[in-house]
Amino acid sequence: MPSSRELDLLSRRERVLSSTYRLFYDEPVHVVRAEGVWMFDADGRRYLDAYNNVPVVGHGHPYVVDRLSRQARLLNTHTRYLTDAPLELAERLIATLPQELRHVTFTCTGSEANDLAVRIAKAATAGTGFIVTKYAYHGTTEATAALSPASGIALGPNVFGFEVAPSNPAAFGSRVRECIESMQRAAVRPAALIIDTILSSDGVISHPAGFLAEAVEAIHDAGGLFIADEVQPGFGRTGEGMWGFQRHGVIPDIVTMGKPMGNGHPIAAIVTRAEVAKEFASRTQYFNTYGGNTVSCEVGLAVLEVIEREDLIAHVREVGSYIEQKLRELAESHSALTDVRGIGLFIGVQTESPATAKRLANQMRRLGVLIGTTGPRSDTLKIRPPLIFARADADLLLQALSTALREASQRSI
Amino acid sequence: MPSSRELDLLSRRERVLSSTYRLFYDEPVHVVRAEGVWMFDADGRRYLDAYNNVPVVGHGHPYVVDRLSRQARLLNTHTRYLTDAPLELAERLIATLPQELRHVTFTCTGSEANDLAVRIAKAATAGTGFIVTKYAYHGTTEATAALSPASGIALGPNVFGFEVAPSNPAAFGSRVRECIESMQRAAVRPAALIIDTILSSDGVISHPAGFLAEAVEAIHDAGGLFIADEVQPGFGRTGEGMWGFQRHGVIPDIVTMGKPMGNGHPIAAIVTRAEVAKEFASRTQYFNTYGGNTVSCEVGLAVLEVIEREDLIAHVREVGSYIEQKLRELAESHSALTDVRGIGLFIGVQTESPATAKRLANQMRRLGVLIGTTGPRSDTLKIRPPLIFARADADLLLQALSTALREASQRSI
Repeated sequence: MPSSRELDLLSRRERVLSSTYRLFYDEPVHVVRAEGVWMFDADGRRYLDAYNNVPVVGHGHPYVVDRLSRQARLLNTHTRYLTDAPLELAERLIATLPQELRHVTFTCTGSEANDLAVRIAKAATAGTGFIVTKYAYHGTTEATAALSPASGIALGPNVFGFEVAPSNPAAFGSRVRECIESMQRAAVRPAALIIDTILSSDGVISHPAGFLAEAVEAIHDAGGLFIADEVQPGFGRTGEGMWGFQRHGVIPDIVTMGKPMGNGHPIAAIVTRAEVAKEFASRTQYFNTYGGNTVSCEVGLAVLEVIEREDLIAHVREVGSYIEQKLRELAESHSALTDVRGIGLFIGVQTESPATAKRLANQMRRLGVLIGTTGPRSDTLKIRPPLIFARADADLLLQALSTALREASQRSI
Repeated sequence: MPSSRELDLLSRRERVLSSTYRLFYDEPVHVVRAEGVWMFDADGRRYLDAYNNVPVVGHGHPYVVDRLSRQARLLNTHTRYLTDAPLELAERLIATLPQELRHVTFTCTGSEANDLAVRIAKAATAGTGFIVTKYAYHGTTEATAALSPASGIALGPNVFGFEVAPSNPAAFGSRVRECIESMQRAAVRPAALIIDTILSSDGVISHPAGFLAEAVEAIHDAGGLFIADEVQPGFGRTGEGMWGFQRHGVIPDIVTMGKPMGNGHPIAAIVTRAEVAKEFASRTQYFNTYGGNTVSCEVGLAVLEVIEREDLIAHVREVGSYIEQKLRELAESHSALTDVRGIGLFIGVQTESPATAKRLANQMRRLGVLIGTTGPRSDTLKIRPPLIFARADADLLLQALSTALREASQRSI
């Protein structure tokens, strides 16, 4: 039952926010504070955050917040003056990427990054055709929403979507080749293939590593670019490296990055191969008022430092594989769980039905653990915690899931 | 002459940033610190900031920074949990607007706000046609760049642009009616007229108050919406109220706001009439990860409080009209200045040529005062300081402009 304070907030939301807003859970959580992997509600109850990928180094990380505060006091300005922070951050980012990826452009959000990648790909190829997965999500701007059937809207006119079953990712390459053929039959020139390097809203599809390679070769053969959308998998989430594409042995033409980059502070970017943005830059200006501002860039630097200093990628690999193994054990004894997918701390647990997934996520919330659902049918549990998630946190998560499964099966008897 | 440190920064920019980046001034300023209306370079030299509209309450305002820091430590999360800050901010914003404007959606940048307004206008009207001024600038996303001929790209396919001479803003209404007729002849259904309520990149066109009214009536008659782009004029810059459209006696269907809203922190928003976003919301989801996050909203609240507490709108009216009067006096004695336009602290000084404007802006920079240029021919000086700009600051600005004019005229002898 919502408290009177919650009811007040709910009615104020109804009154002053647009009807595009949605809340998580049948009983939304009224969050007032967060620290590390914990979020706290107004009654002081704590929730284990096994969902939010944005606070990648943990909610309110003191070092990140200190650097944010210091820089906000010192200088918050844009890239039309010479400043140090954007250059330091660009250099640090480039150092994590293959040497082909050389030029950085800062934006504020992943949507802006993907939108800019779309504009650059069109200019670079003189093409207009894009290939996406059937349940892709790449952003909220008009151009990126047209690439995002997961938002419930139709694909844009020159956007070709293909379905890939979690059980058959090996078909990925041939599906992309088929899209290219459809495109050519429709006399549409390919601009780019844009892909989450772990397919997220398609149901968390991650394996086998390398399944993107054939698709990338196909789009290159057709004269299009490969845009790796790293907004979700980037910044160490896979536990195998900084970027999701690295698992596939491919080198993108454009990498887009966002959410975890500022641990909650709005900063995002694209990194391109040397020549890719030239044509775009010769035709038009691109200036993003806040993109690459000194405060955002200091925050971005702080996040990269923490990932390195706390050795988070190795940590993710270890705790991620622990969770995966335990989830597989759980799935063996509960028919409600039909598959475990993902890599590192990006895990999808397929359930037997959308109703089951929804019930489990709501039940977990009541037990004090926050997870979400995803996938074409919303039948997959999405477990995607801050990267500092410890083994003890994993045990709490698994315990809660186990309890929720037991309660669900009792209820269904 | 750039210092060796500046040369190093310049070559690093060249190496790691994309070629879309541009710097201000022939001799770019290496900024390392800013406070109030002052920016400081690496040698400790100070520059009076008479250009930047983003730090609306002054660079590094202590109250805004403190609230940013406290909230970043406490809770930075999104709108899919119940949180207090976005509701408080939405309520505060709505209280500054006519009662018809009721529903808020948060984004991170003005570009995202205008992009969302475009999507909503299309859904609300089932139209695809947009009307903009010939030198408009409304953003950097693909959809808003198509409405932004100032960026150097062609108008989008269903975008109709019209020119309005600074000397004849009264023609505004008939130009919009002509665009609507062209649109109807082309069988394009109108979606919206989108206008800066002080025309900015068209050369800072502000007078007479009310010149938008006929155009707004025309677009409404044709079934389209009026989108007031308040990214530049909003938040008190006119000195006559919080919003630029208020001077014109019109009520927009959608108001978009950005830059000054967070004093440099990336936050933006749209506010719509009650029914306007319904159709959009019924068709698709809109979720902006950082938009409306608790930190951004606390910053937005802090900025609104400072504007009110420091009585900045009245201050802007006073100091703005002082500057305008003095600029008119200066223009009388210098033939290089041919017109003074604008309102409050958004002032355009037309010069005799693009070369003159460029020379003056560069000379002012050497004299320690930062201004910019704008207008279709870049022949207009853009003076648009933080709103706390004091009368003494104005005197420094005017003195520097006077010196620059003298030096320019000597050089041209």
